[in-house]
Amino acid sequence: MELIAGILNISAVGKRIAIIDEQTANLLGVHSSDRIRLTCCGREVIAIADVATGYPPDRIWLYLEIAQALGATDGKAVQVQRAPMPESLSSVRAKLRGERLREQEILNIVKDVVEQHLSDIEIAAFLTALKVYGLSMSENEALSRAMVKTGKTLNFGKPPILDKHSIGGIPGDKTSLIVVPIVAAAGFTIPKTSSRAITSPAGTADRVETLCPVNLDIGEIREVVRKTNGCLVWGGALELAPADDLFIQVEYPLGIDPMLLPSILSKKKAMGATHVVIDIPTGTGAKIKTPTEAYTLASDFVHLGRHLDMKIQCALTFGDQPLGCGIGPALEAREALSTLMGNGPKDVHEKAVSLAGMLFELVGEKDGSRKAEEILQSGKAESKLREIIAAQGGNATVKPEDISVGPEKAQVRAEEKGRVLWISTDGIVQVARAAGTPKEKGAGLILHAKTGEAVAKGAVLFEVYAERSGKLSDALELAKKIQPVVLSRKVEERMLLDQFPSKKTSRDSHFMLER
Amino acid sequence: MELIAGILNISAVGKRIAIIDEQTANLLGVHSSDRIRLTCCGREVIAIADVATGYPPDRIWLYLEIAQALGATDGKAVQVQRAPMPESLSSVRAKLRGERLREQEILNIVKDVVEQHLSDIEIAAFLTALKVYGLSMSENEALSRAMVKTGKTLNFGKPPILDKHSIGGIPGDKTSLIVVPIVAAAGFTIPKTSSRAITSPAGTADRVETLCPVNLDIGEIREVVRKTNGCLVWGGALELAPADDLFIQVEYPLGIDPMLLPSILSKKKAMGATHVVIDIPTGTGAKIKTPTEAYTLASDFVHLGRHLDMKIQCALTFGDQPLGCGIGPALEAREALSTLMGNGPKDVHEKAVSLAGMLFELVGEKDGSRKAEEILQSGKAESKLREIIAAQGGNATVKPEDISVGPEKAQVRAEEKGRVLWISTDGIVQVARAAGTPKEKGAGLILHAKTGEAVAKGAVLFEVYAERSGKLSDALELAKKIQPVVLSRKVEERMLLDQFPSKKTSRDSHFMLER
Repeated sequence: MELIAGILNISAVGKRIAIIDEQTANLLGVHSSDRIRLTCCGREVIAIADVATGYPPDRIWLYLEIAQALGATDGKAVQVQRAPMPESLSSVRAKLRGERLREQEILNIVKDVVEQHLSDIEIAAFLTALKVYGLSMSENEALSRAMVKTGKTLNFGKPPILDKHSIGGIPGDKTSLIVVPIVAAAGFTIPKTSSRAITSPAGTADRVETLCPVNLDIGEIREVVRKTNGCLVWGGALELAPADDLFIQVEYPLGIDPMLLPSILSKKKAMGATHVVIDIPTGTGAKIKTPTEAYTLASDFVHLGRHLDMKIQCALTFGDQPLGCGIGPALEAREALSTLMGNGPKDVHEKAVSLAGMLFELVGEKDGSRKAEEILQSGKAESKLREIIAAQGGNATVKPEDISVGPEKAQVRAEEKGRVLWISTDGIVQVARAAGTPKEKGAGLILHAKTGEAVAKGAVLFEVYAERSGKLSDALELAKKIQPVVLSRKVEERMLLDQFPSKKTSRDSHFMLER
Repeated sequence: MELIAGILNISAVGKRIAIIDEQTANLLGVHSSDRIRLTCCGREVIAIADVATGYPPDRIWLYLEIAQALGATDGKAVQVQRAPMPESLSSVRAKLRGERLREQEILNIVKDVVEQHLSDIEIAAFLTALKVYGLSMSENEALSRAMVKTGKTLNFGKPPILDKHSIGGIPGDKTSLIVVPIVAAAGFTIPKTSSRAITSPAGTADRVETLCPVNLDIGEIREVVRKTNGCLVWGGALELAPADDLFIQVEYPLGIDPMLLPSILSKKKAMGATHVVIDIPTGTGAKIKTPTEAYTLASDFVHLGRHLDMKIQCALTFGDQPLGCGIGPALEAREALSTLMGNGPKDVHEKAVSLAGMLFELVGEKDGSRKAEEILQSGKAESKLREIIAAQGGNATVKPEDISVGPEKAQVRAEEKGRVLWISTDGIVQVARAAGTPKEKGAGLILHAKTGEAVAKGAVLFEVYAERSGKLSDALELAKKIQPVVLSRKVEERMLLDQFPSKKTSRDSHFMLER
């Protein structure tokens, strides 16, 4: 059937969608979500049909993506016919029935996700089925390989290429900012890409951005790594495993994360990593609640890594409270820099040294922690971070206090004398978010008391920082309501930890998808 | 934040979507799929954010639905802020974790589906989780009630109100066209609504439309039923259980049908039905393959009916081949009319009498089949159909040969002598579809040999009808390739029925969502 193109001058956010009127759809035998083949100007593309009512029946409306792919302009004649559904959709349907998918089927799905041939409905159903049925190791492997294959890859020359990753979920975890310079200072290559926060107070990219640009292209990254052995850049625009970003878009509203393993390891593989330490924070406040779950996940990481020719060690780390004291991009960058300068909190120092040590041992060194400690103590790691900052275009001589934090601040004090019984990571995240993180980089919290510490009545529990006074009062009000730092004279005096359904926090609030 | 409205003069096909630029989204702390609260002109609406790149950061683009709901025009100032996610999304997420949902949670989900507060991604995930985990009886009940509550309902006065429904899947099943007039002729009220075909050769609404209009409004339906005790109308525009239609839109590309029970019974309940016969065709060519599955489904229907105050009887019917000979809207309407006039195929006659008889017995009659048979034989059912046709605005004196069928036709003949071993319902559907059904109402097939019949070499197996010669040759070519009527001299000579993966048909081709 010949229809006249109407160009919608808006993007369908990547999707290849064309709108036709119901009458026209009936004549074509096409229903919403069916595929249609469009031919125009010697080009042919497959689009997803969106059937609407009240449109002129002789026209087909093309979103920008499809108009560009087709080279169609307003008023052009477009040949339209029903097209068969993509083969990958058969595989998605097989997964909905609980079938195990073969490597080629998974590759087809991932390709069609990247090329926008599958709709959000179909991707959502696929991810939900993965979440419910779980993934076999060969499906995890096939997904990882397919995601690498459909994106760009980097090659930094001769192995080993080291990397470090945390599955996330712990506010204040600025370990990467310390591990990368320690490892690079030892002469190893560690090209670290990281993400920005979506719902957490800060991602590594957000932290680093308060020190230097992070949005580097592949050529610039290569140059930084050549000069310094390492980098600390944002991975989001590099098109490494782009399927992963498209999956995350759909996972986000659903609060599910079925592709954790292939998502993380495909990005590492695309960067050419050969030796990787994965941090799995474990505890009631973390994504992973129990050691049993943590060991299962760790074993899956190691196993999958082996299939992908990567040596992996997992670190089970203490995840029951925020790491260090600073929370929020700028406050965390300050704390990381202080730690490299020898003045950081003990837990930050200890965690960074442990993880860097594990990486050293993974490439054959003896007593990795000691080596990491020595590099840190010697000041070489600090110098290395400054080299990286300079190479990425930042100020190499920056002092912690130069990093700009929110001008609006207030202290939250203990209403009674006591000991910190526990700190709700979820509560801290909510308060930090109310204060403006992750988008307002100077916003956040500084904890003045950590779990187990004794505090006097009226002592400062934490300080809240914000860039705007409205946000500061929002954050303080929320802090008053949810009381993220829980005090007690003795454990026995506070047996009731929380109630469910809770008046304090919503059921879903702790889900963090960013990695 | 204040943004300037840009009105997109296109519909988002019902959804309440607004597009903002990535920069603006970052400032708002909003991610794609997050909810935003828009205030303009004294009105407030919640929209789903679609985050795009390359848009002017001071603007918000509104699809028609949201612009209308807000009363916004181009250039108006709109206040935009992040809104919490809808409560129903928490319940969707709970279902993804496998939790059983309470009645109120299900009502919230269904309401938000009808009011377009849930995105396609979220609805797709919900339906997939229902498909994988299954539904408890109380979830089925809550879904049915919620779908009735969020739509229109009809009340035809004093009970009993009878109804008949097939779960579908058998090409050529024109039983409703015969059952409704038999039951109405006996003085019972039977207001039958039905659907149009999406992928099958014909729905009841498509068949009836070759006799009279089916797109009646509620007032007109009431009048037809008052005059004749029955009706045969399209239910699609009546807003009975509108959530169901929205769920079906999402189920369609996925080929899943987890809400079969509430979908069917909510529509019956909305029409005020008190006594319902459900036809469950059973056999290798049907949706339900084995008696075990059929009895399980039947038991669920009866059980759920009891919870919804409906008396239900299920008919397990032979579903191994098409019903009757005519397939396609016009050819089936011809055959139904002939059957009422005493000249139809035995199986059509027999099935209609059995189902009408079950309905009679359900309301307390003895020997229902005999009563149905008498009404059919007496010509009263034929007169009743003619009354209904007239009341709906058709020609009451129509003869079967007056119903217009496709002018293009050709015969497919037996290449060898033999006996019909089986007829692939899936193959018949594919050929009928290639010929132009369901949209081209004169298209279809007439079977000249049914399972078990002996045919001579060169005898006609079936005729193909089409409205256009191109479709006729497409259908003939496909028929030659897939050979839907399988001949064999003896069963023992044809042990290989099919091979898998098949060269003939795709793995998903037999999925039919219409009910």
